Amino acid sequence: MRVTMDCVSCMMRQTVDAARRAKADEGAQKRILIGACEILARGFNNDEMTVTISRDLTQLVVEETSVEDPYLEVKERHIKEALALYPRLKERVAKAPDRLLAALKTAAAGNVLDIFIDVDVQAEDVEEILNQDFALSCLEEFRQQLARSKDVLILADNAGETVFDRILIEELGDKNVIYAVKDSPIANDATLKDARDSGLEEVATLISAGCSTAGTFLDDCTEEFRRLFFEADLVISKGMGNYEAISESPRPVFFLLKAKCQPVADDIGVPLGELIFARQEDIRK
Amino acid sequence: MRVTMDCVSCMMRQTVDAARRAKADEGAQKRILIGACEILARGFNNDEMTVTISRDLTQLVVEETSVEDPYLEVKERHIKEALALYPRLKERVAKAPDRLLAALKTAAAGNVLDIFIDVDVQAEDVEEILNQDFALSCLEEFRQQLARSKDVLILADNAGETVFDRILIEELGDKNVIYAVKDSPIANDATLKDARDSGLEEVATLISAGCSTAGTFLDDCTEEFRRLFFEADLVISKGMGNYEAISESPRPVFFLLKAKCQPVADDIGVPLGELIFARQEDIRK
Repeated sequence: MRVTMDCVSCMMRQTVDAARRAKADEGAQKRILIGACEILARGFNNDEMTVTISRDLTQLVVEETSVEDPYLEVKERHIKEALALYPRLKERVAKAPDRLLAALKTAAAGNVLDIFIDVDVQAEDVEEILNQDFALSCLEEFRQQLARSKDVLILADNAGETVFDRILIEELGDKNVIYAVKDSPIANDATLKDARDSGLEEVATLISAGCSTAGTFLDDCTEEFRRLFFEADLVISKGMGNYEAISESPRPVFFLLKAKCQPVADDIGVPLGELIFARQEDIRK
Repeated sequence: MRVTMDCVSCMMRQTVDAARRAKADEGAQKRILIGACEILARGFNNDEMTVTISRDLTQLVVEETSVEDPYLEVKERHIKEALALYPRLKERVAKAPDRLLAALKTAAAGNVLDIFIDVDVQAEDVEEILNQDFALSCLEEFRQQLARSKDVLILADNAGETVFDRILIEELGDKNVIYAVKDSPIANDATLKDARDSGLEEVATLISAGCSTAGTFLDDCTEEFRRLFFEADLVISKGMGNYEAISESPRPVFFLLKAKCQPVADDIGVPLGELIFARQEDIRK
């Protein structure tokens, strides 16, 4: 997805938030803000993708503050809170009339975790989302495709959401699930450590996609990952960042996310806040 | 008040909002966004005042779109809605045990109007604010100063809020009230036309301060206004913009506002959302 006017102010806000969390001193604040203005002007002028702009903004904060992971504390807290919820979510799915649908919704509900809302993981909020319908749904197509698939690649999104994804993985049946995370910290996106801390090693093969973009941006990924992406029988993409990164890919992908910002909601063609489970062709109708 | 990190992303958002309302086409959007990045980088690097940065951003939108007043429709709507509320507000003040306090609160309640929340003027919301206490109050000092004053200068804030100010003016007693507005449109700040449309000509002498900053920035004002500002017996400053513009002035001022953003709340030393009625010395204690 290409940068919009609204993305510019939002990314500036995210940069300020990261700079503050990284405890940038006055000099670093100036260099970060000035550098961010340059990156955003260049990005908007060249219709760059949101994921490459936010990657450059993140690198700027890391370079100026030497803090590798400004969201470390948030990620650890979200994983801990999500793990505490896990038994209850698991039980809910086990009792559901359609377990696969319930598991998909659980994974989408995990996407509500957001550093810019900085919510705690509350059972009530998750419950509310689980009762929400998908605004776009390709459940039957997914069911059919899944039955024919052996290798399932999941593109991970945030730390904490990872625990919700475990519920989905456990409902996929006897599949070879590969769970791909970011190579180094970007915002609250899951890294290998976060995925391990979420217990995912027990249910999937964990790999780094090689990129450090908020969204699996293929140009930044390893050759090995790109091959895997194009060859996997089925790909599930979690969250907005991955949608932004690969919505234009020719390879069919099942996107599972909550449309938490207006530019993404507009791009998909749904109202803000909706839950989405759709393929490229469902969105571009 | 000097620009903070949070101001940068907020002013970017305001610029995008103004550009959209002014129906900037794709080329204009690019020039505005790139120009805004330059202005913000320069402003933050030089610790400029928020009011001069937002003035330059507004001029940029006007130059690129040739739309003088992107908030015209919002201002007209707010004035109309506020005028409909006027009789009810007037009656409420008439019945209050302390009419002056009730009128001051009414004027502060008008400050809740905000283009970035873009609320409608709802009687219930106003009622809620009227029941809120001032977090900082210099009511008794104001009462004493008012008794000794003949000329009262009010620095206006937003269109719509103007109608609420009428209630205050009518409670000031037999004073020579001068109501100073912005010279040309900036955001939803009141201009002479807005003040007239709000019926203020009947209760005060309306003047333009000569500036077009979101806040009465003295360097941009006319020589005549500056003299008036320093010679008036009593000055009431409405809203955040005026606070940002003159909080460091040596001339004693009564600030009446709602702290609607974190940097202003931090500068005053109160939690976000509080109602303030205070002089410089009350704030700097």
